[in-house]
Amino acid sequence: MIGFTGNTLDRADDLRHDPAAFAAAAGDWRARWLRLDGLMPEIGGDGRLVWTTLADLPDDAVPILLGLAEGRPHFAAFLPGFQASSAPAMRSPALMAMLANLAPGEAAIYAAARSLIDWHARHGFCANCGAATDIYRAGWARKCPSCAAEHFPRVDPVVIMIAEHDGRALLGRGKNWPAGRYSALAGFLQPGESVEEAVAREIEEESGVRVRDVRYIASQPWPFPSSLMIACVATADDDAITLDTNELEDAMWVPRAMVRAVLAGEEGPFLPPPPYAIAYTLLTEWAKE
Amino acid sequence: MIGFTGNTLDRADDLRHDPAAFAAAAGDWRARWLRLDGLMPEIGGDGRLVWTTLADLPDDAVPILLGLAEGRPHFAAFLPGFQASSAPAMRSPALMAMLANLAPGEAAIYAAARSLIDWHARHGFCANCGAATDIYRAGWARKCPSCAAEHFPRVDPVVIMIAEHDGRALLGRGKNWPAGRYSALAGFLQPGESVEEAVAREIEEESGVRVRDVRYIASQPWPFPSSLMIACVATADDDAITLDTNELEDAMWVPRAMVRAVLAGEEGPFLPPPPYAIAYTLLTEWAKE
Ligand SMILES: [Zn+2]
Ligand SMILES: [Zn+2]
Repeated sequence: MIGFTGNTLDRADDLRHDPAAFAAAAGDWRARWLRLDGLMPEIGGDGRLVWTTLADLPDDAVPILLGLAEGRPHFAAFLPGFQASSAPAMRSPALMAMLANLAPGEAAIYAAARSLIDWHARHGFCANCGAATDIYRAGWARKCPSCAAEHFPRVDPVVIMIAEHDGRALLGRGKNWPAGRYSALAGFLQPGESVEEAVAREIEEESGVRVRDVRYIASQPWPFPSSLMIACVATADDDAITLDTNELEDAMWVPRAMVRAVLAGEEGPFLPPPPYAIAYTLLTEWAKE
Repeated sequence: MIGFTGNTLDRADDLRHDPAAFAAAAGDWRARWLRLDGLMPEIGGDGRLVWTTLADLPDDAVPILLGLAEGRPHFAAFLPGFQASSAPAMRSPALMAMLANLAPGEAAIYAAARSLIDWHARHGFCANCGAATDIYRAGWARKCPSCAAEHFPRVDPVVIMIAEHDGRALLGRGKNWPAGRYSALAGFLQPGESVEEAVAREIEEESGVRVRDVRYIASQPWPFPSSLMIACVATADDDAITLDTNELEDAMWVPRAMVRAVLAGEEGPFLPPPPYAIAYTLLTEWAKE
């Protein structure tokens, strides 16, 4: 399963528009509340997220409805004093180790909760007028009491891709990455671009390689803080690399057999991305072709 | 060409990070400035956007670098007093008629400019602390002088899709749509979802139809105000429709031959989406299969 996908909760969108039903769900004694330390999950010995009851939460906890499972409401709690910047580093080694141990689907629930809590923590004010805003729609929006603007959680599309040339994949290495790690290139899609255009622009900006024939492979949510990763492969006519050293420390072309070997755990010229990153899925799919 | 794609400007991302080079570009006498009336474009008899010079703009016009063409800088101007809500309706018939007449690629430049200007108009304040923010990065970001938070233009991923069953496509009709118009279903992707998951959720929410095997078809930027439309086809095992009447006025299964006929301009049970909408591309691709 692709990392951070496979959420089995029913998002119950209708409850977000029904304040009475939402209030009843939040008061339901069977309701489960996701246990978080800041933005860090707690994970049981079974590889599953740990849940608690409303009684264990502070009085000012604001419910965010993650969804229903067998009719039972599942919430995350937003604690109004929470400061996103005081949370553990975006992708700490401790968190990365926890994610590697989470059962499939559990990471997806955590991803939704994390992205929403982080968004609330950083979006307490109205971008349109500057007033403090209120959480509504079951935790899936904020509303401005001053100008009535509604604000919805951001999801930022990111393209992540390999250029291919003559059976080799272009992999790059960002600054401050773990030693030996190489992966697909990536960057934020900008206003006024299609996925295909963003893929071509990013590859050319970062590596100087021009591509055509962009092919979509897969997607995943990425909760650091809230991206939609869109993984693609594109064809390059030329393999000359002109590195943008502001973006990348290095880039190289890796033959398919070598990518396959590294993903299979053999020693090679690079360390692969972790399995929960879509770069891993992308390389795996490309290596199979 | 897919609507709003084919922007031929070089976005010149490096200039956004080089204030001196950006200032030089904005002062370049050869620089071209997109002529807009609020958010409405001006279009010449050749089907191309009309550009002007800095001399024609008010003194407080803030440059947004759209990109370079043959080394010549192209800008949109953000006018600080501009109120997005005072602009013409999101998709007025007048604008729709103009878009239908724009040369390929020109609509893509307009889309980028429109999305950015609208974003600035609605995001003058810091969501993190409420202070008024300043435009920077050549018009591609805002920065808070109080808490130092950086804010980047939003792009909201939207999934747009047809379910297929037994050679028929599921088309729906929203409320207040032009008479006879039917199109693909669509909805915003939410935090914690992949494209494939959002497609399945939206189809099921709106029509009660469950799908599997989601296939990506194409994407486009959609500047109302700033979405990334991700077009897909998914397979349904059952054709029973349970309409969500909050979302849709009607939905129906349309045979492939009928979709093909309607797209070819023949009379049929529905009016097709306009050619610049990706729903048109999506139906066209599906009709060919
Ligand atoms: Zn407001
Ligand atoms: Zn601020």
